[in-house]
Amino acid sequence: MSKEAKIPNPTIKRLAVYSRPLEILLETGPPVISSQKLAGLCGVNPAQVRKDLAYFGEFGIRGVGYDIRDLLHAIKGILATDRKWSLCIVGMGHLGSSLVQSENFKKRGYIVKAAFDSDARKTGKKLSCGLTIQAASSISEAVQALDIEIGLITTPPHEAQRVAHLLQEGGVGAILNFTTIQIRTRKKCIIENADLSVKFENLVYHLEQLDKKG
Amino acid sequence: MSKEAKIPNPTIKRLAVYSRPLEILLETGPPVISSQKLAGLCGVNPAQVRKDLAYFGEFGIRGVGYDIRDLLHAIKGILATDRKWSLCIVGMGHLGSSLVQSENFKKRGYIVKAAFDSDARKTGKKLSCGLTIQAASSISEAVQALDIEIGLITTPPHEAQRVAHLLQEGGVGAILNFTTIQIRTRKKCIIENADLSVKFENLVYHLEQLDKKG
Repeated sequence: MSKEAKIPNPTIKRLAVYSRPLEILLETGPPVISSQKLAGLCGVNPAQVRKDLAYFGEFGIRGVGYDIRDLLHAIKGILATDRKWSLCIVGMGHLGSSLVQSENFKKRGYIVKAAFDSDARKTGKKLSCGLTIQAASSISEAVQALDIEIGLITTPPHEAQRVAHLLQEGGVGAILNFTTIQIRTRKKCIIENADLSVKFENLVYHLEQLDKKG
Repeated sequence: MSKEAKIPNPTIKRLAVYSRPLEILLETGPPVISSQKLAGLCGVNPAQVRKDLAYFGEFGIRGVGYDIRDLLHAIKGILATDRKWSLCIVGMGHLGSSLVQSENFKKRGYIVKAAFDSDARKTGKKLSCGLTIQAASSISEAVQALDIEIGLITTPPHEAQRVAHLLQEGGVGAILNFTTIQIRTRKKCIIENADLSVKFENLVYHLEQLDKKG
């Protein structure tokens, strides 16, 4: 396992990307794939694929390719996506509600165990997934009781910092922050930002540059 | 404008991040902010803030700080977020439906002009935002007629490549791809991936590493 700890972050991100077409091929395709083919499906170059996969041992057979089932199994082991993770979502607006219902999450082993909102008109409401929306004030207690590992924040920006604090008090190890606010943490906790509007602004900047050129 | 073209990509991404607290402060805070304070709110170091902002001229007054209104205006000009952009969304599942209804998008000038789905049970349905879901087969025509600049793909993965092709035929300049599939394009078109599951896998990998360390 000591070897795995040295895998660089860009490789980890690409492993997740590699696993996508492999999942589809596992159900429909041939049992083996070449680094060339996998690279093409993922939009990276074949040498990069071979280099990334070499980090965790010998998988490919020269001139034949990778066994899809073995490779996917290994990647999922590395990424720790071969186990279930328990989540909660705070903020039952449009985005939060859509994430609660995501079949894709469940399929990937991310189990939403609780949903919270600070709006008293929403708390107590039963969601189609079976969960009942709980008051934001009960976050710490519920997170601890349900042993929730990851918290998603889809609240209005001004609530995000307070919610992050409650999630950490309850003991989550990671927070995925969908708001436009940068969250500060005191304890050891992984924060990942998933603010869509930053992605948008990057996109339109480049679009504008293209328009100027031609 | 030639100077702007040289702004590096990481700076562009940080400009979007800087604009968030500035927007909030513009409504509630003092008229001026120091690079120290702005850096703290954004989780970057003050030298980085000063360096990034220096790319587009002299804004700060030494010992005083930046005029919040001027700075925000300049950032929005650079990022091209001071104008409206027209979008369409293809795939009216949970995520697509939540994005169509996003008040946050509209507030930022991203106007959703059309919504599509390939499911005949969904087409013709009127959404609460006033749009009617159109058949995916009419994407090219509608995109061209409505002069849509950006396409969001929230379909099942196996439909994404075909949809991307139709969007490009209609003339979009950029695609934001929420599916797990890498999209290939023939024409000049900006593709940005917003696959949440890659973000998740990165998060749980690091969480697992932390757990191992104890």
